[in-house]
Amino acid sequence: MNFDQVNIPGKLLPANYLQLGLAAQRSKQRSFKELLEKRKLPVNGWPDVQIEELVHKLATLDSNNFPHKVGMGEREARIACKLVARRHYNFGHGIGRSGDLLEAQPKAAGSTLLARLTNALILDLMRGIGLPSCAGCFLVPMCTGMTISLCLLTLSKRRPGAKYVLWSRIDQKSCFKAITAAGLVPVIIPCQVQDDALHTNITSFGEKIKVLGVQNILCLYTTTSCFAPRNSDDIYEVSKLSQQWGIPHLVNNAYGLQSADIVRQLERIHRVGRIDYFVQSTDKNLLVPVGGAIVASFDESLLHNVANSYPGRASGSQSLDVLMTLLSLGLNGFQSLIQQQNENFIYLKENLKKFAKSHGEVVIETRLNFISLAITLSTIAADQMESITQLGSMLHQRGVSGTRVVVPGQIKTIDGHEFLDFGSHRNDLKVPYLTVASALGTTRNEIDKFFDIFSKCWIQLGQHKNDNQNFNLPKSTDNELH
Amino acid sequence: MNFDQVNIPGKLLPANYLQLGLAAQRSKQRSFKELLEKRKLPVNGWPDVQIEELVHKLATLDSNNFPHKVGMGEREARIACKLVARRHYNFGHGIGRSGDLLEAQPKAAGSTLLARLTNALILDLMRGIGLPSCAGCFLVPMCTGMTISLCLLTLSKRRPGAKYVLWSRIDQKSCFKAITAAGLVPVIIPCQVQDDALHTNITSFGEKIKVLGVQNILCLYTTTSCFAPRNSDDIYEVSKLSQQWGIPHLVNNAYGLQSADIVRQLERIHRVGRIDYFVQSTDKNLLVPVGGAIVASFDESLLHNVANSYPGRASGSQSLDVLMTLLSLGLNGFQSLIQQQNENFIYLKENLKKFAKSHGEVVIETRLNFISLAITLSTIAADQMESITQLGSMLHQRGVSGTRVVVPGQIKTIDGHEFLDFGSHRNDLKVPYLTVASALGTTRNEIDKFFDIFSKCWIQLGQHKNDNQNFNLPKSTDNELH
Amino acid sequence: MNFDQVNIPGKLLPANYLQLGLAAQRSKQRSFKELLEKRKLPVNGWPDVQIEELVHKLATLDSNNFPHKVGMGEREARIACKLVARRHYNFGHGIGRSGDLLEAQPKAAGSTLLARLTNALILDLMRGIGLPSCAGCFLVPMCTGMTISLCLLTLSKRRPGAKYVLWSRIDQKSCFKAITAAGLVPVIIPCQVQDDALHTNITSFGEKIKVLGVQNILCLYTTTSCFAPRNSDDIYEVSKLSQQWGIPHLVNNAYGLQSADIVRQLERIHRVGRIDYFVQSTDKNLLVPVGGAIVASFDESLLHNVANSYPGRASGSQSLDVLMTLLSLGLNGFQSLIQQQNENFIYLKENLKKFAKSHGEVVIETRLNFISLAITLSTIAADQMESITQLGSMLHQRGVSGTRVVVPGQIKTIDGHEFLDFGSHRNDLKVPYLTVASALGTTRNEIDKFFDIFSKCWIQLGQHKNDNQNFNLPKSTDNELH
Amino acid sequence: MNFDQVNIPGKLLPANYLQLGLAAQRSKQRSFKELLEKRKLPVNGWPDVQIEELVHKLATLDSNNFPHKVGMGEREARIACKLVARRHYNFGHGIGRSGDLLEAQPKAAGSTLLARLTNALILDLMRGIGLPSCAGCFLVPMCTGMTISLCLLTLSKRRPGAKYVLWSRIDQKSCFKAITAAGLVPVIIPCQVQDDALHTNITSFGEKIKVLGVQNILCLYTTTSCFAPRNSDDIYEVSKLSQQWGIPHLVNNAYGLQSADIVRQLERIHRVGRIDYFVQSTDKNLLVPVGGAIVASFDESLLHNVANSYPGRASGSQSLDVLMTLLSLGLNGFQSLIQQQNENFIYLKENLKKFAKSHGEVVIETRLNFISLAITLSTIAADQMESITQLGSMLHQRGVSGTRVVVPGQIKTIDGHEFLDFGSHRNDLKVPYLTVASALGTTRNEIDKFFDIFSKCWIQLGQHKNDNQNFNLPKSTDNELH
Repeated sequence: MNFDQVNIPGKLLPANYLQLGLAAQRSKQRSFKELLEKRKLPVNGWPDVQIEELVHKLATLDSNNFPHKVGMGEREARIACKLVARRHYNFGHGIGRSGDLLEAQPKAAGSTLLARLTNALILDLMRGIGLPSCAGCFLVPMCTGMTISLCLLTLSKRRPGAKYVLWSRIDQKSCFKAITAAGLVPVIIPCQVQDDALHTNITSFGEKIKVLGVQNILCLYTTTSCFAPRNSDDIYEVSKLSQQWGIPHLVNNAYGLQSADIVRQLERIHRVGRIDYFVQSTDKNLLVPVGGAIVASFDESLLHNVANSYPGRASGSQSLDVLMTLLSLGLNGFQSLIQQQNENFIYLKENLKKFAKSHGEVVIETRLNFISLAITLSTIAADQMESITQLGSMLHQRGVSGTRVVVPGQIKTIDGHEFLDFGSHRNDLKVPYLTVASALGTTRNEIDKFFDIFSKCWIQLGQHKNDNQNFNLPKSTDNELH
Repeated sequence: MNFDQVNIPGKLLPANYLQLGLAAQRSKQRSFKELLEKRKLPVNGWPDVQIEELVHKLATLDSNNFPHKVGMGEREARIACKLVARRHYNFGHGIGRSGDLLEAQPKAAGSTLLARLTNALILDLMRGIGLPSCAGCFLVPMCTGMTISLCLLTLSKRRPGAKYVLWSRIDQKSCFKAITAAGLVPVIIPCQVQDDALHTNITSFGEKIKVLGVQNILCLYTTTSCFAPRNSDDIYEVSKLSQQWGIPHLVNNAYGLQSADIVRQLERIHRVGRIDYFVQSTDKNLLVPVGGAIVASFDESLLHNVANSYPGRASGSQSLDVLMTLLSLGLNGFQSLIQQQNENFIYLKENLKKFAKSHGEVVIETRLNFISLAITLSTIAADQMESITQLGSMLHQRGVSGTRVVVPGQIKTIDGHEFLDFGSHRNDLKVPYLTVASALGTTRNEIDKFFDIFSKCWIQLGQHKNDNQNFNLPKSTDNELH
Repeated sequence: MNFDQVNIPGKLLPANYLQLGLAAQRSKQRSFKELLEKRKLPVNGWPDVQIEELVHKLATLDSNNFPHKVGMGEREARIACKLVARRHYNFGHGIGRSGDLLEAQPKAAGSTLLARLTNALILDLMRGIGLPSCAGCFLVPMCTGMTISLCLLTLSKRRPGAKYVLWSRIDQKSCFKAITAAGLVPVIIPCQVQDDALHTNITSFGEKIKVLGVQNILCLYTTTSCFAPRNSDDIYEVSKLSQQWGIPHLVNNAYGLQSADIVRQLERIHRVGRIDYFVQSTDKNLLVPVGGAIVASFDESLLHNVANSYPGRASGSQSLDVLMTLLSLGLNGFQSLIQQQNENFIYLKENLKKFAKSHGEVVIETRLNFISLAITLSTIAADQMESITQLGSMLHQRGVSGTRVVVPGQIKTIDGHEFLDFGSHRNDLKVPYLTVASALGTTRNEIDKFFDIFSKCWIQLGQHKNDNQNFNLPKSTDNELH
Repeated sequence: MNFDQVNIPGKLLPANYLQLGLAAQRSKQRSFKELLEKRKLPVNGWPDVQIEELVHKLATLDSNNFPHKVGMGEREARIACKLVARRHYNFGHGIGRSGDLLEAQPKAAGSTLLARLTNALILDLMRGIGLPSCAGCFLVPMCTGMTISLCLLTLSKRRPGAKYVLWSRIDQKSCFKAITAAGLVPVIIPCQVQDDALHTNITSFGEKIKVLGVQNILCLYTTTSCFAPRNSDDIYEVSKLSQQWGIPHLVNNAYGLQSADIVRQLERIHRVGRIDYFVQSTDKNLLVPVGGAIVASFDESLLHNVANSYPGRASGSQSLDVLMTLLSLGLNGFQSLIQQQNENFIYLKENLKKFAKSHGEVVIETRLNFISLAITLSTIAADQMESITQLGSMLHQRGVSGTRVVVPGQIKTIDGHEFLDFGSHRNDLKVPYLTVASALGTTRNEIDKFFDIFSKCWIQLGQHKNDNQNFNLPKSTDNELH
């Protein structure tokens, strides 16, 4: 609906009052035009009402919202429950078209616009925060792990014989399962331990390549963002190996977009090494509900391979979340979130060091991890692992979520592969530790509250080692994996 | 919040007025208790306000909604945009836990309940509409095709050497791509043509098994719901082969839950043959937005294999849609939708036959297809294929979506496999035809409007064969595939 | 926002897909244009999404929603709470302008349109359902009683000396208080009782006019819709008196728009008698939340007098409710509600008669009341009034609201005026009775449930006269007045 | 719904996960309990989701939301349009009961709680910001002017012969019309002019009392918040007269709650003088949509007189807005808004003085006005009043709303009373001026933008006196009255 060529009778409204109202909307129309024509993320966020107007506008272009629709097919985006229709702004057709996530749907011009515009804005964001060389990207409405599986399966089509995926160990279950889910064979490259911090073992990567044979290796698979004291993988060196040997390189950049350092690293590599795909989650980087990932590449054609591997039409819900969030934040809003994360991380680190010092512990130095920190738990109940794992549930009970207590001796088998000292990314953990992160969206207030609670728990644990009996969280909580 | 142990001062409200209000809510509390304790789909639908209360209630159990939360991890379900939080009822944690879609999340009791309750209600629905032997099922927040890929990959783990998937041809792109996406080798079993209707070629299935060798065959893969004049696959006979040879059997039951006939067939097979998984889409069967599928089985343990193949935590948005929809419809609501589909299909068929008769055409007899119908287009512009394909876009322009015009001579290559006469499920199509469906949610009013428009287009096409020049939809529209 | 002159790049969306989407919206734009230009109630209701689009569109014309607003006044429609803004669709300026409810606001073109359009649609509705002579009407965001006070005060300005309001007794508190609230003197005209039904005492009206003197009488004040066994006032005869003596006539038509009979009566009078204003509530006639009234007249100029008596700007919330409701129903929707009321009233009456007959009671014959019915309670506990009043709370406890038990002997003093047998509209009630109504929106299902519960209570009351001790609703409930 | 006595099967959710979720809600339950039991405004604002939970919870207590309701009355709060029901959180019964705004409704325990809780929180707020002696207050869902009329009519009942209302002139239309709307006789007390600022003429008040006779005077009627260069009335001295002569005193405190100075004045008076009622608008003081007023008093019994003068049940929409807003802000939130207003007013004043100085104008000194400022327009086009009035529309066109240009020579007749130099509150205006305000909610950013635009208009007006021809706002815009 618009007021063009509507002759509102003076009896309803004096013409000059209307003019004023219409004039005021021109800037909004300009933003709208610019958004669709230039596909750039606005510098400043849009107000809620404008975001909803856009979204509603797009939805009217879908055939299920046509006033006189006659749906004579099997899938007409009918929505039985009004509440559901409402929460999806009447979008029902999903995105993509059987067998290509990037294709336009004739029945759903609005959903098509929604998906493509979202991809364009994500690309603009990525370029704007330090990845000008990013050639393209698109949202996949599946979790990061499943999206990595899809990338692996896509690579598999090009290299049908190659079965091995060389993977720098990280004790995060989905990272690993992404390989086995794709029916491929993981080859675990253990990290190098230096002063209890973990680094990529480039030498071992090189050796494995030679041992297994280039033609048998599907790709090298690294991870950036991770729990301390593991560092971001040395994607720079791995990407050089990748280029040197002509083996694809896949980067799990799960929540790395929030880290200026990781972003800088990625951009730098583009010129000297090889990365085929880098994949990041939408929830942790863009603060939307869990369920989407972004596949990005320095080579646009590689993206199409992934997009048309997806066998079907997919949920548009994640695109909608990301579109609304990006418009709400604007480039400035997102950059100030990053800025804040940066400052809060330093704040957390300084305070954690103080805490450690005064309690005879150490914050393990991880030069290449700007999100997560690890503090040793060597003095506390050194004799009883039980007490230490209690710390995790004590924190959890008091409202602290996301910290992880890692103790030696945990063994975990995933899809037939056994991991010693699981959770620590290594086989020979000596000293238990606790990880704590300052991620995008963490507030200074939360950090302060954390130390408050942490101190209290520490004291309590020193006093009554067994006070936690009436509330046993399952062990897995203590070692929460995302 | 609840009124228990809240002593509302008489000054605010006379005690007896309050009592009346509280008493009235007991039945609601009973429904709530029953739902959670018995996990049965309510017979009658709930009112909107009650559905939202439930959903909000569940969300308060997630840690991101705790008043005093201190999130010190990487993924704390922070939601930057209030509109997004609102549309997800503040759910952010997704469902499942790294590497298992069915696992509980310590951080997210509400999301866990949401996912599991939804699965329980779907199961109850399936049993209630004719599948009492269904042992379990769960929602996967991916499209049907990708979910089938996941099932294939899961089967692959059990039969690592087996590469071949024996597939009864159906010209629906995602069905086929689900095989190649999983890195497997499709073996196409052409349909048998009888009076222009298409049937499963059981003999050919049997022969291929012998030729390729049982140990090399991953599974038999059939499809029920499909475009006429293809019939539902003869899953009864295929499931007997499956059992006889010990080869898994996967059924793509895309929108088959709406068909009492297909449901009856599935239930019957359980006793005599073998089906490992049957997969159906949520959008077409439950009238929610695109993006989810349901994996079901007669053997619960098989389901866990699929669930823990998914490498990560997944979107909870689809579960939310399904939960709200099921509660809104109730068992009765869903059954009356099915009833309606049934009646409307007969209505459509009768009218289409009348139309065909009066225009010198034929409705191809498909005894095993209760959703889609095909009418020949033999008299209309028999010389010019161009005119016939125009019919599709003419209908589309006039608001009719979902019909498909199929003409001989279309060749399509998908992932290296060439399909002659693509769209017709066969290699030797002679007579062009149009498909039209009466699916779940189609209204009688739409059917009437369809015939009105169809008649007009027919006449117009007879008169001016080239009137459609100023509005050319791309060819693909005419052969729309879902 | 609109797509005019926005050049969507082909990369985002193929032009022909967009065209289809845009074409489909033309009918919506036509409805919008027609609504604003012709100001007629649509014949068929609009879908929710279209209603919200309209409302949002209007709100964007208000200065508080201008993107670059600079509010330097005292009242800039700032809304502190986002939830509040949301529920008002960002309308904040209210309607009217200091001292005239019908004036346009320069700052708020949208709110102005909202208010005027709503008034226009109400007028169209009223004309459409049988009042073609209605010259105008407007919504006042105050309850019916207060609006009647405003009308009385307005009349007062024209007849400054006249203090008396001749009022045909109806035992509905607000009706009466509307007179005293305006600082005027009520003169009560008792009803005539014929076979226990109550009728307007025209003779008494005539006599009072002569006794008090025309110049001292502000107006005659009648009521149409009312509780049985009182009938609608004989507005036909009163309006003739009104015309004959040149005394204004005010009709409280509280919920009379739903009754075809009352509407017919009003229209007929227009030609032969005099009615200055007839006032009706929005909640009961249009099924919106309580809080608004409609002042209508056969003489448009009289309306302006009322509108500019209101000293200020008023809430726009009621206009919004009515606009949305009218658009949602359409003329057809409203007429079918009336039709339903009509049928349900007959259904209720028949069943009540059956019930009465089988229980030795009588349904009092009220020829001019088409909404409410009264059944005697003569056989039940004739000795104990206590038991009879219990019936009211028993029904209430069991979920039946709106029925009233009227017993002899109640005395009520309102603003210094004493009413004997209050609730019965007369001074000499002998037989207690129960009123029950079938109003707009009552469903047949409710009627059935009512008889079910009524029967049970009747039996129970016969058995245990004192079973109701642990739940005493205050007496006033039993005689609920609206 | 609540989890008490619901035995969630472990299969759905591990018990300890549930415990954690339930534990986290205890603080919310405590807030809820405290709110209802103590009826105090929370110190800190509540999050949106908690506010909505409360509101939904209250609504479930109303009979229209009972699952098994059987509505057999005329007014059952049926809501036809789902969108309307939704925006009112399913409240439909309004507040109060026929003839008393403060009474409880048996049918609507939730609406009753809503209304009374809101009144309690407003009272707590008023006491908290400096009016500890305030004995009571309640929200009236009518504009300030109409509410003042209601207060006047209420006073009238106690003093039936008294017709005169002594009113300190303020050129705000509704203030004055509130008197005539009530059928009373305004006696205008002109202000005293001192250096172009306007003060209450106490002497004149005293003289008029003697001349007209105490028994003939209904009340003294003063106004606090107003446009500069009028000052807040000297309510201190008037209240002493009021007490001395035993004449009621009514204060129009339209938007005075935001001014610490006016609040202090009111509280001080309580001890030495007399104020019967002080009335304030909800929109300007609490930043909700237009439509409500708060009647407050130092004597609770006086309030009941007003409440039970209202002839009917009233809209609950305004109570809902205020409740949600107060909970959203909390006491701290409101106080920081006041603080901000205070600082911004000083900022505006300083900048306006600078502007005046550099343009040869003067900011008229008004010692008792802390919201509005007036700057002379003596140098600009002194010859042409036309140009000056253009300034108003120029500003308006550029997005500045709320400023008023006041020029000599305007005559306005309201209800038969002629006002010379209307808009200036005096009869002998010489120098035109512009008013500009910094009210609650004005941002510093708006003030900066205002000066930017003001400067530009000033220059433009100096250059082209007639550039404004193609956009003529009606004269009334220039002298906007609220």
